[in-house]
Amino acid sequence: MIDGREKKGNKTKEALLNATISLIAENGIEALSASSIAKKANVSKASVFHHFGSMETIQQEAFIFSDVLMNEALEQIYNKSKETDSFSDIMLKYFLFFIDENNKKYLNLINVQMQFVVKSSYDQEFDDLIFNQDREKTPFDLFELLLNDFYGDQLTPSDIELINDLIVTYLNGFATFLISVEDTEWLISLWKEQIKMTEIYIQSLLDKK
Amino acid sequence: MIDGREKKGNKTKEALLNATISLIAENGIEALSASSIAKKANVSKASVFHHFGSMETIQQEAFIFSDVLMNEALEQIYNKSKETDSFSDIMLKYFLFFIDENNKKYLNLINVQMQFVVKSSYDQEFDDLIFNQDREKTPFDLFELLLNDFYGDQLTPSDIELINDLIVTYLNGFATFLISVEDTEWLISLWKEQIKMTEIYIQSLLDKK
Repeated sequence: MIDGREKKGNKTKEALLNATISLIAENGIEALSASSIAKKANVSKASVFHHFGSMETIQQEAFIFSDVLMNEALEQIYNKSKETDSFSDIMLKYFLFFIDENNKKYLNLINVQMQFVVKSSYDQEFDDLIFNQDREKTPFDLFELLLNDFYGDQLTPSDIELINDLIVTYLNGFATFLISVEDTEWLISLWKEQIKMTEIYIQSLLDKK
Repeated sequence: MIDGREKKGNKTKEALLNATISLIAENGIEALSASSIAKKANVSKASVFHHFGSMETIQQEAFIFSDVLMNEALEQIYNKSKETDSFSDIMLKYFLFFIDENNKKYLNLINVQMQFVVKSSYDQEFDDLIFNQDREKTPFDLFELLLNDFYGDQLTPSDIELINDLIVTYLNGFATFLISVEDTEWLISLWKEQIKMTEIYIQSLLDKK
């Protein structure tokens, strides 16, 4: 059972993680400090260290938390649509969600994850810290689930894995655009074309059977 | 005419830009300083400012220089292969070049460009500084040239532009892998599959004609 104090503690922890993600997206990961997090979340610096012990821990947990938030969003879209929508409709809904101006918070998650990938490319300690953690589910798992639901009975597991890898690659490519390009109309039409290309590719695999 | 002093000046300038690119790839752009560049290039700090005036200028020129170096490399591959190789062979050669362990220097260029894209997403001043520059040619132009050479007489310019945009997107996706993933065999096989997917997509456009 969770008592009152623990509940409040969890709430503070979540507020601190949200503040961390906003700050990284706004000012870059190098500018992150315990004081800036405390200020943003309106708590004391001591409270930051009480909840996380070190800056390393907060970075680790912020990354995992960004995975969780992204997953929740994608899963919700998926559960609402899987009975009625086509593969390409769901793929489009995913994208429209992250590009929606009201969901800036979710675009921040992409920005944070991109910063973590880039920083870990030149900072081995940071790489170990962030990417050697156990990640229960990553947002990419949702795409594999989607592929399995729509094509699992027609394609082999290795085909599914290959298509998933291709999707993940261009998701990463779109992420670099999403965090920098302002022409959302162009991005949406390009995403639609990517989905079309993927479907044509899947069809070519089906034709081989 | 370029006299001796100017020639030496250009050489120093190039050495400073190469040092800048290495340093950004090794330690991240936030750690870059005039002293670190001077040390790496074995010149005085005064010489750094003599050649570039400010840290802003050196960042600007390093970005343009990374474009130039990447272009030169791609162009050389292209000129050697265009008479004999297929579209997919040339696409594969591009990739193998950047992934080759002897060409670590060129992988650094990708890392630097990725860092610049990410930093400009949260630092508007930096974004203006780097991406509002006139870029004579970007490495992406080489892909458009390649597409035009192979498909220019069968596809419309807007088809070519669309395919180029799709290629650029997954190039960006591969860039995030290239700077972080160590499994080169997987990357190469995935790249080959991306090329295949692109060719199938191109064929579907040709079939519509």
